[in-house]
Amino acid sequence: MPLVRITVPRGMSEVQRGALGRSVHQALVDVANVPAEDRFQVIEELPPENLSFSSSYLGLAHEGPMVFVQVTLNAGRSVEVKKALYARIAEGVHAACGARREDVIVSLLEVARENWSFGGGSMSYPPASG
Amino acid sequence: MPLVRITVPRGMSEVQRGALGRSVHQALVDVANVPAEDRFQVIEELPPENLSFSSSYLGLAHEGPMVFVQVTLNAGRSVEVKKALYARIAEGVHAACGARREDVIVSLLEVARENWSFGGGSMSYPPASG
Amino acid sequence: MPLVRITVPRGMSEVQRGALGRSVHQALVDVANVPAEDRFQVIEELPPENLSFSSSYLGLAHEGPMVFVQVTLNAGRSVEVKKALYARIAEGVHAACGARREDVIVSLLEVARENWSFGGGSMSYPPASG
Repeated sequence: MPLVRITVPRGMSEVQRGALGRSVHQALVDVANVPAEDRFQVIEELPPENLSFSSSYLGLAHEGPMVFVQVTLNAGRSVEVKKALYARIAEGVHAACGARREDVIVSLLEVARENWSFGGGSMSYPPASG
Repeated sequence: MPLVRITVPRGMSEVQRGALGRSVHQALVDVANVPAEDRFQVIEELPPENLSFSSSYLGLAHEGPMVFVQVTLNAGRSVEVKKALYARIAEGVHAACGARREDVIVSLLEVARENWSFGGGSMSYPPASG
Repeated sequence: MPLVRITVPRGMSEVQRGALGRSVHQALVDVANVPAEDRFQVIEELPPENLSFSSSYLGLAHEGPMVFVQVTLNAGRSVEVKKALYARIAEGVHAACGARREDVIVSLLEVARENWSFGGGSMSYPPASG
């Protein structure tokens, strides 16, 4: 159910991009109760000058290149789960492609369970009464 | 009011991409009460290896290439409307570009009506009291 | 905290793209209480034929090229703030790159404060009780 969009500066190798995608998925599986076979990801490569960032925010220094991870997922994860997820994603992205942990930005978009079709034109998680 | 993002693997013809966009819009018009003249879409083409997917999830086999359709729209469509929308989008995308219905993923992002400006710097759907 | 995605037709100069990004950020700072050092943006350039739009909607004529600005931000801005934000973004984008104000589309995605990590694997705005 998550749809994951990972935005990276152009220039990463295909091996790095593959490792990056796997690491984010593994974080979701390990921490946020996402099934292993529920992997849907888009990796978007942009020119570095098209990824803007502040050099410092909230006491964290950013050097770039940034890696943006935007995860659309069902609402309901607890604050504790989200905290653990951020930590695991930053760690995994760092290990996968060498980006500094400080340069990994995560954004969650929470949606209702009925807001997904994972193929076949059917609603993937219909309400119990539906 | 919807803003539709369609993500496809590189290699579709311009004719296919055009048909794809029209089919998704028509589904929204026919099923989800979207005005015909309310069409705003982005078609994003990515290298096939940048579109990750599980080979099977929820009993559906995915072969790829995947087509991801993410629709930002006003909250409030019923479960029944959403179900009909998924079916129509999968059917239309299949007809437009030959993608398997099983490989069409739809994600809805619901927002408040006040969250749009469709040009001119004005709020498109201000609250009645506003 | 906002994560801003600006989608433009291919062909803008790097100078224009830079001005565009700065103008949207400045609108957020001036109108929506975003800290100056809280700038995170993605500028996406697509072939013009991949940006679809209606020639007229809600009494506004669209000529293109369109500029789509999708802002993920914390929930809670008032209707009045959003109205002012739309006006400032349209004005700024026009000044930055020459796009017609009518051709600037803004979409807001509101999220919970706990839905962000701006680096270091930590939750950027943990709840007071967290």
